[in-house]
Amino acid sequence: MTTDALEARGGQMIDSDFLTQLAAVIRAEDSYGQWDGKDDAELMAEFIVTREERRDIPIIGDPDPDVLWRITKFYDAIGLMIEKRSGCMASQMQKMSHEGFGRIVLIAGKLVVVSKHLRDVHRFGFESWAKLAEAGDALIDSAVAVIDAYPDAARA
Amino acid sequence: MTTDALEARGGQMIDSDFLTQLAAVIRAEDSYGQWDGKDDAELMAEFIVTREERRDIPIIGDPDPDVLWRITKFYDAIGLMIEKRSGCMASQMQKMSHEGFGRIVLIAGKLVVVSKHLRDVHRFGFESWAKLAEAGDALIDSAVAVIDAYPDAARA
Repeated sequence: MTTDALEARGGQMIDSDFLTQLAAVIRAEDSYGQWDGKDDAELMAEFIVTREERRDIPIIGDPDPDVLWRITKFYDAIGLMIEKRSGCMASQMQKMSHEGFGRIVLIAGKLVVVSKHLRDVHRFGFESWAKLAEAGDALIDSAVAVIDAYPDAARA
Repeated sequence: MTTDALEARGGQMIDSDFLTQLAAVIRAEDSYGQWDGKDDAELMAEFIVTREERRDIPIIGDPDPDVLWRITKFYDAIGLMIEKRSGCMASQMQKMSHEGFGRIVLIAGKLVVVSKHLRDVHRFGFESWAKLAEAGDALIDSAVAVIDAYPDAARA
């Protein structure tokens, strides 16, 4: 897909620290530079799931490993942004059922800074770049607020 | 195995709230009462791994699902004892590698009350009933101390 088509798909690409971080997390997996020619929108194209696409994704059977990979990268990027904003490193743990339910936590010190219950993980994705960035920012803001509320536990 | 043989294997069975809880957690899986005739020592026999047995367990290949089940039950029992002592419910999350490394956390509210890194999970087990009880009590004591240190985060 060309970048134009992708922009049409996810709406206007927006300037977002979170999206930049997410693209960097994905590029970190590209040991051989095979994605160097791709721009960030191409690299993150699968994070966009339009309303129509969403409807077409069945939620029976085990979630696609690619979806689980994207969820992990999404929360890795959240964790790194939390570290940039608070200085607290946040590590990720997941508990996923085969039916597409799950829980993800990010832990800084002894503090759970993000705790998210997921359902329909098969359909994980966002309608637009704006919504992807917004979802990331909301999780980061809330995590930083939790760290501010319990600073000692976060640094324990 | 008869109870006598098991006692010889794990040493003297001891009176321990944790062992009682662990046996109860295991019995909770016995929907059809097939284990009603077994005493607690028989039910928990696999939690005992003697020094010689330990040496004989290979640590290559994926850990046995039965071992993972026992680890889960062990930490479920820890979680329930923490709740009895502190009033805070603690839920478990695991992150296990296929190589037998892993991390287990118990989370109460926003607080990580137990965080344990495991290695050689293939060989999970304890030399004696006394050591099994001691390991459980140590984790419970430490979790309760963490809750006392950060009561607000534990109840958040």
